Amino acid sequence: MPDFIKPFIRNIPDFPKPGIQFKDITPLLSDQHAFRRTIDLLESRYCLQTLDRIVGIDARGFIFGAALADRLHLGFVPVRKEGKLPADTHDHCYALEYGEAVLEIHTDALKEGDQVVVVDDLIATGGTAAATCALVEKLGAKVVECAFVVELEGLKGREKLGDSEVFSLVGFG
Amino acid sequence: MPDFIKPFIRNIPDFPKPGIQFKDITPLLSDQHAFRRTIDLLESRYCLQTLDRIVGIDARGFIFGAALADRLHLGFVPVRKEGKLPADTHDHCYALEYGEAVLEIHTDALKEGDQVVVVDDLIATGGTAAATCALVEKLGAKVVECAFVVELEGLKGREKLGDSEVFSLVGFG
Repeated sequence: MPDFIKPFIRNIPDFPKPGIQFKDITPLLSDQHAFRRTIDLLESRYCLQTLDRIVGIDARGFIFGAALADRLHLGFVPVRKEGKLPADTHDHCYALEYGEAVLEIHTDALKEGDQVVVVDDLIATGGTAAATCALVEKLGAKVVECAFVVELEGLKGREKLGDSEVFSLVGFG
Repeated sequence: MPDFIKPFIRNIPDFPKPGIQFKDITPLLSDQHAFRRTIDLLESRYCLQTLDRIVGIDARGFIFGAALADRLHLGFVPVRKEGKLPADTHDHCYALEYGEAVLEIHTDALKEGDQVVVVDDLIATGGTAAATCALVEKLGAKVVECAFVVELEGLKGREKLGDSEVFSLVGFG
């Protein structure tokens, strides 16, 4: 587990609701060395794999996912919150840690058999990532792995991802 | 003006409201060569400049901005819609092409004198970019240039950016 990341993850108590300890990754983004080394680690994990696309989850997953796609010379597919994607979409409703939400993917975003890595900044209860995997699979594509910078291990989100492989750079209890 | 980009920009009529011709950049993201060459062009424009951070606008600006920050070995600062940033923020209210909105930046995101490039996928009326520049300047930092992949030239958004330099890769009338 890389030691350099944790000092750049800031804990914000009671955001967005009382009782939630929010892990703020903006200090990690802001530091040029820490951001670059984070993308280095993701690149080194996937650079020898046969992949077709990186799928990034709205909105912080776009940051890590797009930089990773560029490093790996892959296309990037955004999975977005309801009403943001302009063309024909599939949608998936799911429960959040606090509330519920709908995610969407363009119906032409992936082809049958495409191999993808799903990227987000953080996995909490796993609902968002599981919904994203369901959308990827609805298009006939395969989730090779779900990759996160931060894993809130106590929430056991990886259990919600079933057969999908899960990789995270740092964990919090 | 690079010829390869326009075929990857898809026009979606009447999104998000009747009468709006939405320029969908997801085909550009999805194509590994087109996405990479787009980031190449942004990198080549800024690689010789003295810059401190790339500022990306929520949410599609994160995609191009984060990949550019990684290429240039710079930190990345997200400017976000209201209520998304967890720590202390400055906010700026502005009128959109359709509606109005509030953007926020963390108060510690930039230092006085930082030189930044602001990145978004598209400039329409320029309200979002102008609000972002106002937030950057409120922190005492300087916008060296605002960079867009697509410019809707007929909407004259660059006029709203005042003294800031404006760069776009492709324009639509």
